Amino acid sequence: MKALLILAHGSRKKESNDEIVRLARALDEHPDTSFDKVLCAFNQFSGPTAPEQIKVLADEGVTHITVFPYFIAAGSHVVSDIPELVKDARKTYPRIKFDVSPHLGAFKGIQHLILSELGTRSGK
Amino acid sequence: MKALLILAHGSRKKESNDEIVRLARALDEHPDTSFDKVLCAFNQFSGPTAPEQIKVLADEGVTHITVFPYFIAAGSHVVSDIPELVKDARKTYPRIKFDVSPHLGAFKGIQHLILSELGTRSGK
Repeated sequence: MKALLILAHGSRKKESNDEIVRLARALDEHPDTSFDKVLCAFNQFSGPTAPEQIKVLADEGVTHITVFPYFIAAGSHVVSDIPELVKDARKTYPRIKFDVSPHLGAFKGIQHLILSELGTRSGK
Repeated sequence: MKALLILAHGSRKKESNDEIVRLARALDEHPDTSFDKVLCAFNQFSGPTAPEQIKVLADEGVTHITVFPYFIAAGSHVVSDIPELVKDARKTYPRIKFDVSPHLGAFKGIQHLILSELGTRSGK
């Protein structure tokens, strides 16, 4: 049973965090997803935290968690905080396999996404 | 002459800001782009700032600037700071047309991008 945990920075603005919650829900219900479950967590300014959501997934019997740093660039959260929390989670849940995906900004398709939404020669 | 200004939060980590600089350069040189020029700017922790880059574009004779909030979600930078700086820029450069695109997290293609990189039923 595979899960995706979308890990975002978090904002003091509830509306901003709600965007991530809606994204997680949409991916959870997406017909093309290969994940049995998709949740999100926040580093700062909002819950749920990653350890809280990992516990939820562990209690549901998830065997594999992909942690997805939902960040534009590899600042200190991506470089230090997330690897640290995954290290702790591996100790707490030795039976669960954890992996950390590239952060959003490192996705190969990002340039294509930006141009296709903002302007290509053939489009607008 | 159309320009794209990628506006990112900025990080204390130079490496993180360099990712955005590389993205702007890649889009500037991208064969499919409809923009004559692509630059980036940072809200915090790093230069160049948006006003500095808008001046560069104005001096080069750009007539239309699309400001792209390169943010995951609509926190206070997207909701308040960027509209405010665009308002100021419109006053300073009345001959340049400014528009503000949706922020990255609001792009329709974001779910597809995430699943295609992290796991679809047909893929991994």
